[in-house]
Amino acid sequence: MKNLIVASTSTVHGSGYLDYLFPELSKLYDNVPEVVFIPYAQPSGMNYDDYTALAKKAFSSIGIAIKGIHEFKNPQEALKEAKGLFVGGGNTFLLVSTLYKFNLMALLKTLIEKGVPYLGTSAGSNICGLTMQTTNDMPIVYPPSFTTLGVVPFNINPHYLDPDPDSTHKGETRETRIAEYHGFNTTAVLGLREGSWLAVKGRSIILKGPLQACLFIKDKKPKEIPAQTDINRYL
Amino acid sequence: MKNLIVASTSTVHGSGYLDYLFPELSKLYDNVPEVVFIPYAQPSGMNYDDYTALAKKAFSSIGIAIKGIHEFKNPQEALKEAKGLFVGGGNTFLLVSTLYKFNLMALLKTLIEKGVPYLGTSAGSNICGLTMQTTNDMPIVYPPSFTTLGVVPFNINPHYLDPDPDSTHKGETRETRIAEYHGFNTTAVLGLREGSWLAVKGRSIILKGPLQACLFIKDKKPKEIPAQTDINRYL
Repeated sequence: MKNLIVASTSTVHGSGYLDYLFPELSKLYDNVPEVVFIPYAQPSGMNYDDYTALAKKAFSSIGIAIKGIHEFKNPQEALKEAKGLFVGGGNTFLLVSTLYKFNLMALLKTLIEKGVPYLGTSAGSNICGLTMQTTNDMPIVYPPSFTTLGVVPFNINPHYLDPDPDSTHKGETRETRIAEYHGFNTTAVLGLREGSWLAVKGRSIILKGPLQACLFIKDKKPKEIPAQTDINRYL
Repeated sequence: MKNLIVASTSTVHGSGYLDYLFPELSKLYDNVPEVVFIPYAQPSGMNYDDYTALAKKAFSSIGIAIKGIHEFKNPQEALKEAKGLFVGGGNTFLLVSTLYKFNLMALLKTLIEKGVPYLGTSAGSNICGLTMQTTNDMPIVYPPSFTTLGVVPFNINPHYLDPDPDSTHKGETRETRIAEYHGFNTTAVLGLREGSWLAVKGRSIILKGPLQACLFIKDKKPKEIPAQTDINRYL
């Protein structure tokens, strides 16, 4: 049975890395002594070792060991043996390119569907959708495909931002970008605000955290989804 | 001799579509009775006819006719006969995909290099760089390549936004995104603020408008370029 936390962000304003998720993570990784961390999204270009050290430090406070996938001889073997998985944020184009480069995308999907506990934050959540096409990131590398894990039946827009009515900037709002996406695609998009996450257990996909999420369905008005409800009810 | 206006945005706050550029456009399209408009970037999903009507209306105030590329039987022939070109803003992934679909990318480059006057705004400016990899847009479609016109020897980041020191949002700043780009690419990136444009004539690339632009060179501190100077001096 699938068992995931799909979080908009790793860090909420005024608090440390993953702090707000610790109570959930203790439950997600119940009886998992070591989690395999995938640092491929390299936020701000951070190298794999430094990024893994950050995750290690955070997880040490809940008594769970972290090992970076790059610390194993073979990344496929690393995943096959993993008892828990964590894919951190950064650049989604880079994350997806690297997962394809090492032939890990299909394997990751299989493992998640088998029930290996998975935490994704930001880019690591984006790839839980059917495609990465609602990422906010810059296309710093060219991935062989935009298709991602599809372990939830819609796309994710992490770090979702409401339009700022006072803005004088002419760049597209997030809502406009998602409308443009729906000009060419039919997949629903969930705008997940910072501080929100999805608790996925089997087929159930519960919105958690203090905030609503904004669901975009092609040719319909965006819909605010209340916390504590199953997203499936609105699809 | 190349002759382009490469503008960050079509519209500045509090003013109409292209208004602030009209004096420049009269000079750019001197003696050009009709400009071929490429509406492929479809801002907010706007269809080709509506987008072309918007450009027609704006250009009528400076006595220049506009014809949409889609109004010709053959888009390649349309470009070959064009005495002036305008590529409007919208979604860069869509624009680049469509240019490749109709085999127009190489042709467009050739025509610009031959001296056909060109106006780009936003996505239409982004494609003047070597690649589209510093776009701010959402990857709503999968282009066959990120390579673009390369009619300036760097990449463009249109609608450049300075980091907001008061922001509590954890999404990457524009500066962080460009730093991530430089983790994997060596091409310089020019952050062009709204209200700025480049006047390209042959090899000269003068920054115009009231603002500075921010130049990002790999492994160097970002540099503010004063208006009225040639970007080549800083490359």
